[in-house]
Amino acid sequence: MKLIKQLEWRYSVKRMNGEEVAKEKVNKILKSIRLAPTSMGLQPFEILVVENPEVKKDLFQIACGQPQVLESSHLLIFSAWNQVTELLVDDYMKTIAEIRDLDIELLDDFKTSILKFVRSKNDKEIREWAARQIYIALGTAIDAAALCHVDATPMEGFNSKAIDEYFDLEDDNLHSVVLLALGYRDVHKDEFAEAPKVRRHFEDLFRFI
Amino acid sequence: MKLIKQLEWRYSVKRMNGEEVAKEKVNKILKSIRLAPTSMGLQPFEILVVENPEVKKDLFQIACGQPQVLESSHLLIFSAWNQVTELLVDDYMKTIAEIRDLDIELLDDFKTSILKFVRSKNDKEIREWAARQIYIALGTAIDAAALCHVDATPMEGFNSKAIDEYFDLEDDNLHSVVLLALGYRDVHKDEFAEAPKVRRHFEDLFRFI
Repeated sequence: MKLIKQLEWRYSVKRMNGEEVAKEKVNKILKSIRLAPTSMGLQPFEILVVENPEVKKDLFQIACGQPQVLESSHLLIFSAWNQVTELLVDDYMKTIAEIRDLDIELLDDFKTSILKFVRSKNDKEIREWAARQIYIALGTAIDAAALCHVDATPMEGFNSKAIDEYFDLEDDNLHSVVLLALGYRDVHKDEFAEAPKVRRHFEDLFRFI
Repeated sequence: MKLIKQLEWRYSVKRMNGEEVAKEKVNKILKSIRLAPTSMGLQPFEILVVENPEVKKDLFQIACGQPQVLESSHLLIFSAWNQVTELLVDDYMKTIAEIRDLDIELLDDFKTSILKFVRSKNDKEIREWAARQIYIALGTAIDAAALCHVDATPMEGFNSKAIDEYFDLEDDNLHSVVLLALGYRDVHKDEFAEAPKVRRHFEDLFRFI
């Protein structure tokens, strides 16, 4: 399977060469993210796609001093909803009714079950639930990038509050969760470019029952 | 890209037909999971691959009364480490040294940085960090299944404590986080088999900067 071959090929690149990823490939990665499944289909996130070099410089300085931020072609900032408001659930119901050509009233039970779920959790739990959904999409983004021969480095170690303030994300009911730098490896500068891939042994990861 | 086509084809199947997924395809999905990236490469999880119908019956009764549990071919139980012990980090260092043919002392700084990260977090935070890594692998498993034309339904709503007790997972430093049922859709019984896929609009999900 091509996916396995490409996952063997990829690694979390530490140094990128600044080359631009073609728009067509970026779009394939974003379309894959959009198709990733999420809990109840809510997709409780928004993704900032940063290309502007000045903005990347600012982010490098205030939030994430890792060279990939500057050397990437596109920096994706996966941002989760802070709260699942009834308005957002209503928007989702409208989208379902529109795409499936249904009377929206037919979705009342579904809406009620979502709100019940949401109201059973506190703010922190909702944030964590939303973050997990983002990580499914992150996995899919990494797979899609690998299949396009694009390098992708996920990054958790950054100052999320500084990013949230820079983009006023709180005003949009969002907070940054994880970054994904898209670009191309610099095989001369990256000491891990030729290193064999390390993974735990198959028999330690899986237990057959 | 085949991934996009297959992600359009897939959906979270509610009713499966009990048909077995060939071992070769299951192996491709598991190999993809193994290759998914994780924070610092730690892969802080283990996956139970349940085929035994009696065990599936028990799980259906005690923890997850959803028909896919019984009707699936394989039920994957993604389980996260409860704690990242120094012993587990040492095992990881041994694996790196072995695969990259290095003196293990060369990894001392890396080991120290992992332990520093781990010790900066409390038990709950470690569990949440580990769960997020699982969700990357979950995304990859779903992609790999779709590429093999295998249906895959992720399931969060289950009694994780009951599963943990059933398998004595705590004794193995594990707790169940999320399930993935692998199998084939029953197009007659599943009312969503022909429903158009619902996703939020592209322009609502992505913000270009």
